[in-house]
Amino acid sequence: MIKVGIVGGTGYTGVELLRLLALHPEVELTAITSRSEAGLAVSALYPNLRGHVDIAFTEPSTQVLSACDVVFFATPNGIAMQQVPELLAAGVRVIDLAADFRIQDAQEWSRWYGVTHSCPELLAEAVYGLPEVNREAIKNARLVANPGCYPTAVQLGFLPLIKAGLIDADTLIADAKSGASGAGRKAEIGTLMAEAGESFKAYGSGGHRHLPEIKQGLTDAAGAPVGLTFVPHLLPMIRGIHATLYGRLIKPAGDLQALFEAAYANEPFVDVMPAGSHPETRSVRGGNMCRMAVVQPQGGDTVVVLSVIDNLVKGAAGQAVQNMNLMFGLDERAGLSIIGLLP
Amino acid sequence: MIKVGIVGGTGYTGVELLRLLALHPEVELTAITSRSEAGLAVSALYPNLRGHVDIAFTEPSTQVLSACDVVFFATPNGIAMQQVPELLAAGVRVIDLAADFRIQDAQEWSRWYGVTHSCPELLAEAVYGLPEVNREAIKNARLVANPGCYPTAVQLGFLPLIKAGLIDADTLIADAKSGASGAGRKAEIGTLMAEAGESFKAYGSGGHRHLPEIKQGLTDAAGAPVGLTFVPHLLPMIRGIHATLYGRLIKPAGDLQALFEAAYANEPFVDVMPAGSHPETRSVRGGNMCRMAVVQPQGGDTVVVLSVIDNLVKGAAGQAVQNMNLMFGLDERAGLSIIGLLP
Amino acid sequence: MIKVGIVGGTGYTGVELLRLLALHPEVELTAITSRSEAGLAVSALYPNLRGHVDIAFTEPSTQVLSACDVVFFATPNGIAMQQVPELLAAGVRVIDLAADFRIQDAQEWSRWYGVTHSCPELLAEAVYGLPEVNREAIKNARLVANPGCYPTAVQLGFLPLIKAGLIDADTLIADAKSGASGAGRKAEIGTLMAEAGESFKAYGSGGHRHLPEIKQGLTDAAGAPVGLTFVPHLLPMIRGIHATLYGRLIKPAGDLQALFEAAYANEPFVDVMPAGSHPETRSVRGGNMCRMAVVQPQGGDTVVVLSVIDNLVKGAAGQAVQNMNLMFGLDERAGLSIIGLLP
Amino acid sequence: MIKVGIVGGTGYTGVELLRLLALHPEVELTAITSRSEAGLAVSALYPNLRGHVDIAFTEPSTQVLSACDVVFFATPNGIAMQQVPELLAAGVRVIDLAADFRIQDAQEWSRWYGVTHSCPELLAEAVYGLPEVNREAIKNARLVANPGCYPTAVQLGFLPLIKAGLIDADTLIADAKSGASGAGRKAEIGTLMAEAGESFKAYGSGGHRHLPEIKQGLTDAAGAPVGLTFVPHLLPMIRGIHATLYGRLIKPAGDLQALFEAAYANEPFVDVMPAGSHPETRSVRGGNMCRMAVVQPQGGDTVVVLSVIDNLVKGAAGQAVQNMNLMFGLDERAGLSIIGLLP
Repeated sequence: MIKVGIVGGTGYTGVELLRLLALHPEVELTAITSRSEAGLAVSALYPNLRGHVDIAFTEPSTQVLSACDVVFFATPNGIAMQQVPELLAAGVRVIDLAADFRIQDAQEWSRWYGVTHSCPELLAEAVYGLPEVNREAIKNARLVANPGCYPTAVQLGFLPLIKAGLIDADTLIADAKSGASGAGRKAEIGTLMAEAGESFKAYGSGGHRHLPEIKQGLTDAAGAPVGLTFVPHLLPMIRGIHATLYGRLIKPAGDLQALFEAAYANEPFVDVMPAGSHPETRSVRGGNMCRMAVVQPQGGDTVVVLSVIDNLVKGAAGQAVQNMNLMFGLDERAGLSIIGLLP
Repeated sequence: MIKVGIVGGTGYTGVELLRLLALHPEVELTAITSRSEAGLAVSALYPNLRGHVDIAFTEPSTQVLSACDVVFFATPNGIAMQQVPELLAAGVRVIDLAADFRIQDAQEWSRWYGVTHSCPELLAEAVYGLPEVNREAIKNARLVANPGCYPTAVQLGFLPLIKAGLIDADTLIADAKSGASGAGRKAEIGTLMAEAGESFKAYGSGGHRHLPEIKQGLTDAAGAPVGLTFVPHLLPMIRGIHATLYGRLIKPAGDLQALFEAAYANEPFVDVMPAGSHPETRSVRGGNMCRMAVVQPQGGDTVVVLSVIDNLVKGAAGQAVQNMNLMFGLDERAGLSIIGLLP
Repeated sequence: MIKVGIVGGTGYTGVELLRLLALHPEVELTAITSRSEAGLAVSALYPNLRGHVDIAFTEPSTQVLSACDVVFFATPNGIAMQQVPELLAAGVRVIDLAADFRIQDAQEWSRWYGVTHSCPELLAEAVYGLPEVNREAIKNARLVANPGCYPTAVQLGFLPLIKAGLIDADTLIADAKSGASGAGRKAEIGTLMAEAGESFKAYGSGGHRHLPEIKQGLTDAAGAPVGLTFVPHLLPMIRGIHATLYGRLIKPAGDLQALFEAAYANEPFVDVMPAGSHPETRSVRGGNMCRMAVVQPQGGDTVVVLSVIDNLVKGAAGQAVQNMNLMFGLDERAGLSIIGLLP
Repeated sequence: MIKVGIVGGTGYTGVELLRLLALHPEVELTAITSRSEAGLAVSALYPNLRGHVDIAFTEPSTQVLSACDVVFFATPNGIAMQQVPELLAAGVRVIDLAADFRIQDAQEWSRWYGVTHSCPELLAEAVYGLPEVNREAIKNARLVANPGCYPTAVQLGFLPLIKAGLIDADTLIADAKSGASGAGRKAEIGTLMAEAGESFKAYGSGGHRHLPEIKQGLTDAAGAPVGLTFVPHLLPMIRGIHATLYGRLIKPAGDLQALFEAAYANEPFVDVMPAGSHPETRSVRGGNMCRMAVVQPQGGDTVVVLSVIDNLVKGAAGQAVQNMNLMFGLDERAGLSIIGLLP
C-alpha cells in the first residue's frame, strides 16, 4: 500500500483527491493537513465522505509527511515550493496540483504569479505531469507538476494538429469555458450563486496565468514558439471545462478524424468521439476522461477541436492520481474507473 | 457472474443501472432492450458509457431475457406486469423499477395508475424492495417491487418515529422536493430547462401516485391506517430529493438523536447525521445513501426529519442493485461503494 | 418629485431599489451612500444600471441625507437604528429594509439579533410595512419597518385562514424555500455557486430570525399567541421564495377559494390563482406580486397554501417602494407595473 | 394607439412580445392567435401576465388580423411567408420574428430551411430589421425581417471592425453561446433541464442556419464576401447570448476603444463598456441592450470582441418592438426602458 499525504485538503481539489483516494485499492491515506481546520474530522467538512474517510485534518508537519511515500499539494500557488525541498530530501515523492513547478522559466513564473520562486533549482527536475506527453518521465519523477485545468483541455486538443504540422502555430485561438468550481472554495463575491448563476461572461481576456503554461507545452510540441489567443469564460455550472480550439490549416487537412484517433489510440483517458459528435461536459462529470471531437466546418481552412474534461478530475485530482499510478508502477487506471455522472 | 438483462434502458433509471452494473464485480450485462433504439450502441446514446458498456440495444425478446438470472424493468408504468409472468415462469427473477407491483391492493393501484392490473395474482408474492424494512423477504423473492423515489426518502425518515409510537400517525406531513430527473427522459414542455430552471413550484398537491405507496408502507409500520399530507415540489436542479417531514409528538420525545442512530446503526445505506446537521442533496449525489437528520425546533411538539437521497440511485437504480445483491447472496454493498460527488 | 436617499446601496436590495427607483415617475434619486465604495459610479458596480443611474456612491453623510424627503436603509441589521433618530429629527421619513424596527419587543429583538437596541423608544412608533395589513398606518408613518422576505410570503398566505379562525393557530407549519440572493451580496463560502448550486438543504431549522417576526404578525391577526414551526431551505437558484404552509382545520373549511379571493380582492399586489393552480416563483420574478393558491388535499383536515414572491421585490425593495408610494400619497402601484420575467 | 396583432403567441418570443407590448404606452393589443390554444386566456398559459393581459388566444383569422396596424409573426419558420402577402395587400405592416425574410437569396434560403420559399418576390422588399444598420429603411418598410438572435450579437460586434477595414474579413471566427430559451418552447429531449442543465456543449458546428444570415450582413458591410467560422454552444441557463468574436488585424489597430465608442455613440441600444470590461449576459437580462467590449490580448494581432444580448429581447421581441417604434414614428425607445434584472 502506498502511504499518501495531502497538504491543504479543504479546497475542491483536496476533497476530490479524497474521493478518489478513499476508494483506490493501493492507497493508504496517512495524513491530510490543514492549518485552519486542524482537529476537525474530514467528514465533518465534507459529509459525502462520511463512512469512507475516517481521519481528521492535522497541522502541517514535516515529520508526519516525511513518513509518506508521496505527498499531494492541493494548496494555493506559492505554498508547495516552500515545503517541497525538505520532503524530497526526506525521500518523499511529490505531486503539486498548484502552479509552482509548471513553468520552467523562473522569471516567467514570477511575472505571472507575482512572487519570486523559492526553489528555481528544482524547475528543471520537475516533470510536467501530462501523461499523454511525458509518461516515461513521470514514471521516474521525484517531483511532478500537475497541469492546470485549462492547459490540460487545450493542449490535448491542439497536440495532434501541431505535431502533424497541419496548422499555423502562430494564430492559435482557444475559447475556453469553465464551471465555477475552477475558482476554488474561496469566500469571494464573484463566484457567489447570485453572481455566477444564470449568467455568462469572459474574464481575464487581457492575460490569464494558464496562458504561459499552455504556450510552453505547445511550443515544446511545435519545436518553435507558438502564438495563442486564450479567452477563458465562466460557466453558470459547477464542474466541467469545454475548450473550443481554432487553428488555420496550412496544409491539406487529410483525414482529421483518423489523425486524432491514431494520436490517442492507446490513451486510456483520452476519447476521440466519432465524426460529427459534440462532446458534452457532463459525459465526463466525475471521471478522468478528456473527450474530444474534431470538425472542419464547411470544409474550410479552419479546424475546430472540441475538448471537454472535468476540471476537478482530469483537470486536477484525477490526473494527479494518474500520475501517482505511473510513479509507483501501478496500472495507470487504478482507482480511476469512474463513469461520468449523466444526467 | 450474474447474468443481467435490462428492459427499457433508454431512460434515466436505465442509464443509471448501466453506470452501476458496468462496474459491478459480479455482474455480466447480457441484454438491454429498447424497442425504439434497437440496434443502436448504448454508448452512442450515452457517451459517458463509452469504453465501459460495449453492447447495443436489442428488440425486447423473451428468449434472450429468459437466459438471464435477473431482469430489471426500467420501463414506464404498466409494461412490466405484461412480461413478468412469463419471465418468472422461465425461472428468471425480476426487479421492477416502475410502480406495477408496489401497491398490494389491485383496485387501489388501478385508481392511481388508470389501467387494470394484468396480473393481480402476483401482487401478494411481490416483495416491496425497501431493504431496511424487508431485507429477509427480499433475499428469497422472485419478484421485487423497487420503491419509488419519494417513498424511499419519506418512509425511511418517518419509520423510526412511527415504530416508536412517538407521533400522531394521523397528521403526518411530507413536504418533498425533487430534481428534474425524477420526471424521466421524456419530451415534455414542463421539464424544459427554460421552464424548470431558476424557478420552483409545487405540483400534484391534489394527489400524487406516490401517496398511496407511502401510506401503505407507513400503515404497515404503524399497525393502523395513517393520515398523510404529501406535497411534492420541483427543484431547479437535476438530481436529488429532499423530504422535510413533520410529525406531532404524542409522547415526550426523549432522545430523538439516539432513537434514529439506533434505528439505522446497522444499515449500510442510511446515515444519521449528528444533531444540528442539515443534510444536503449533493452529499449523496451519485451514491446510494439516504442521509438524514432529526430536529425538534424550539423543543416544541413538532418533530422535523430532513431526509435526502439521489432519486436515481437510492431512489431507483442503486436500490435496485442493492436488492439484486440481497437476492443473490452477495455483499449488500457490492458495486455500490460510491462517494457522493461534491461539489 | 420625491427626493430619495439610499444608505448602503451596494447589496442586492440596494441595486434592486435602484432598478425600481430609476424608472419611478415621481422620484429624484438624490444620494446613495456606501462607505466602502464612495466615489465609485454606481453603474461601475452594477453595469445593468448604465444609462439609467448616473450618480456615484458617496460617504454616508447626515447633511446630504437630511435634504431628502425619504431615506431607504438597505444596510445590514443594526445600522439603521443608529442613524434613524437623527434623520427623523431632521424631518426625513425613513423606510428600513433591515430588521431593526420589525420586532416591537426590544428584548426579543436583542435575543435574536445579538445586540442591544439603540433606540427602543422608536419601536412603538415604527409601522410594520405590510400594506395588506397596515395600509392606513403606513400612509402617515415617519418610520416604516419593511418586512422580511420570508415573513411577507408566510404572513400573506396564512392571514385569511387565521382571520377566519379556520385553523389551529397553535400548530402552524411553514416550509419555506428561498433563492440564494436572500443571503445577500457577501463573500461567504456557503452561497458560492459550487456550494449552493445543484443542491438543496434546510438551514436554521433550530431557529431563524424571521420566526419571531412571523409569529408577531400572526399573533396580532389571531388575537392570541400562535405556535409556528418554520423551516427555511436554500434553493439552487437566485431569486424567489416559495412558502408551503400547512394548517389544521378546526372548523368545516367551506369555500376556501372564495375566502382567499375575497381577502385579497382589492389588493394590487396579491394574486389568488384559480383553484388547482400551483404558483411558480418565476411568474413573479422581478415583479412586486405575491401569488398564491390554496389547496385542501383529498378533502382532508389539512389546508395547504402555496405562496410565492420575488424575495428582492415584494420581499424587499418592491415592498419598500410600495410603502413609499403610500407614505407620499402616490398611486400605490407607481413604478411597480412590472411583469414577471418568464421564462 | 397602434393596433397590434400577434400570430403564434404561445412560444417564448410570443410571451416576450406580450410582456413588452402590455406595458407599451402606444399599443393596443388587438389579437393574438394560436391554433392549438384558441379560446384559452393568455394569462392561463403565462401566469406572469395575470392582471396585465386580458385577452384570449384566437384562431388565426385574416379578417381579424387585417384590422391591425401591424402584425408580428412569432411563428416557426415557414409560416409567415404563407400569410404575409395577404396581410400586406390589406395594408397591414408586418414584422416577422422568424427567418422567412432574412435571407435575400431564395435559393440560399431554401438550402438552409429545407422548403421552397412561397413568396420570393417579397425578399427584395423586406428590410432586415437591424436598426443600427438599416434605421431609415425600417421607418418606411411594409415588411421587416427581424434578425436572428446570434446574428444580432455577432454582427453588432464585428461591424465596427469590418467597416474600418481593420481585420481580415476572410478568417472571422464567432464562438457564440446561447441560453436554452433560444431553442424555443418545444417538447424536445435535448433541452430538458436534466439534459441541458449543469453541462455545456457545442452544436451545429458543421453548419447552423444563422451562418448565412450573418455572412450576408457582414458581406454587405465589407463590400465583399466574408469567410466566417461560426460555432454555437448551449449554455446551462435560460436567457442570454454571449458572442466571443475573433478577427485578425491587417492594419495597425489604433484606438479600438475609441473606434467602438464612436461607432455606437448615438445608438440607444448598444452600449460599449469601458476598456478592460467583460460584459455579463445578466446585465442585459430582460432588457433590449447589446453590451460589448473590445480587447486586443497582449497587444497582438488578434482582436477580440465580447458582445452580449438577451436572446429573447434584443435578439427577438425587443428588437421587433424597436422596429415597430421606427415604423410608426414613435420614440425608438418607447416601451423599452427596461433595466437588466441583476442579480
